[in-house]
Amino acid sequence: MSTYTTSELNQVKRGPKRAVYDVEEINNILDAGFVGHVSYNYKGKAICLPMAYGRIENKIYLHGSLKNRMLLALLEAKEASMTIMHLDALVLARSGFHHSVNYRSATLFTSITEVEDREEKKTALKCVLDHMIPGRWDTLRPMNLKELNSTLVLEMEIQTASAKIRDVGVQDEKSDLEFPVWAGIVPLKQVAKLPVKDALLPRQIRTPKHVVTYYKKHKA
Amino acid sequence: MSTYTTSELNQVKRGPKRAVYDVEEINNILDAGFVGHVSYNYKGKAICLPMAYGRIENKIYLHGSLKNRMLLALLEAKEASMTIMHLDALVLARSGFHHSVNYRSATLFTSITEVEDREEKKTALKCVLDHMIPGRWDTLRPMNLKELNSTLVLEMEIQTASAKIRDVGVQDEKSDLEFPVWAGIVPLKQVAKLPVKDALLPRQIRTPKHVVTYYKKHKA
Repeated sequence: MSTYTTSELNQVKRGPKRAVYDVEEINNILDAGFVGHVSYNYKGKAICLPMAYGRIENKIYLHGSLKNRMLLALLEAKEASMTIMHLDALVLARSGFHHSVNYRSATLFTSITEVEDREEKKTALKCVLDHMIPGRWDTLRPMNLKELNSTLVLEMEIQTASAKIRDVGVQDEKSDLEFPVWAGIVPLKQVAKLPVKDALLPRQIRTPKHVVTYYKKHKA
Repeated sequence: MSTYTTSELNQVKRGPKRAVYDVEEINNILDAGFVGHVSYNYKGKAICLPMAYGRIENKIYLHGSLKNRMLLALLEAKEASMTIMHLDALVLARSGFHHSVNYRSATLFTSITEVEDREEKKTALKCVLDHMIPGRWDTLRPMNLKELNSTLVLEMEIQTASAKIRDVGVQDEKSDLEFPVWAGIVPLKQVAKLPVKDALLPRQIRTPKHVVTYYKKHKA
């Protein structure tokens, strides 16, 4: 079991009891979603935008247009930071002060390089797509050279990271326990609803196994 | 109907057809969630973290500990940027290139000031809490001075903003329509599951109307 080294950059200051530096636990947070928020500097202003990603070991892959302002800024900065968060519950306490949410949130600090080799680019793009819905890439019309050449692919190698997880119930002051208000949690979950086929889909094409599997895994 | 002024900062460059600058449409995106990603600079590195927020007109409220590194950095910078994103569907095309997601994402560029007046602080904290679950604040044990004094409250006044919305189906190349692969969308939704009461809750306290209303509005 390996852990990320802590420094001033990634050490969790507020709520250190909820801090996680374990590589496997952080990978679990990364693998539980496929959209994260990537931060960049634009003329001295910090901005973040949602991006789809995939992971291979300690590397995260992003892609976009050759002219994507954020991706170009990241390439120039040669480093990036990305946050992935899953919301798990509202935590409704007896006082406003102890209200909270249950969540899993990871922040990565990474280097940035462009993936230029064609085969490596394809591997990275397959990784991003199959991270969204496993098993899909191999069923698709293969990527052509024009598409490959018009796609910018970035590799983020994780240098360090930290995560915070809150997964407990209400934690009220003892003196509040008799206050006459309901307290508890409301679990939240991102779920998939029934797939809707494209109107132009030929009738004989049935919903494939990888889509059914995704739906079954993520339905309410 | 008012719209945000566009400049180099907030103008959507990639996919301009999906760009939204309308104040009401952007407010709808803000009001559909209660956690956004706030960006800040830490020693020249852009970082973003998830934060609960509330909105009153063109002002967004954040809160945290007096020692919260991000909030203190924002106060010093006197400006901030925040992104709120809702994921609505996987868009599964016939080629990898045309895969996408349906989403609603808004990025705000704001000024930052500290809310210092006690009554204004309470109003801001009520706004954040009732934004998470409407109607709850007034049922709670009232906030005390110690809690109020140990909470940092920031007001973000929106200076400009932009949003991107994708809410259409698969958009494949005509030449791919006969390729033998399933195409369509998988709708995604964040849902609430049945509330779970705190183990220490006195038996006579029933689930209140505001919790039932929240559950019914957000259940699958």
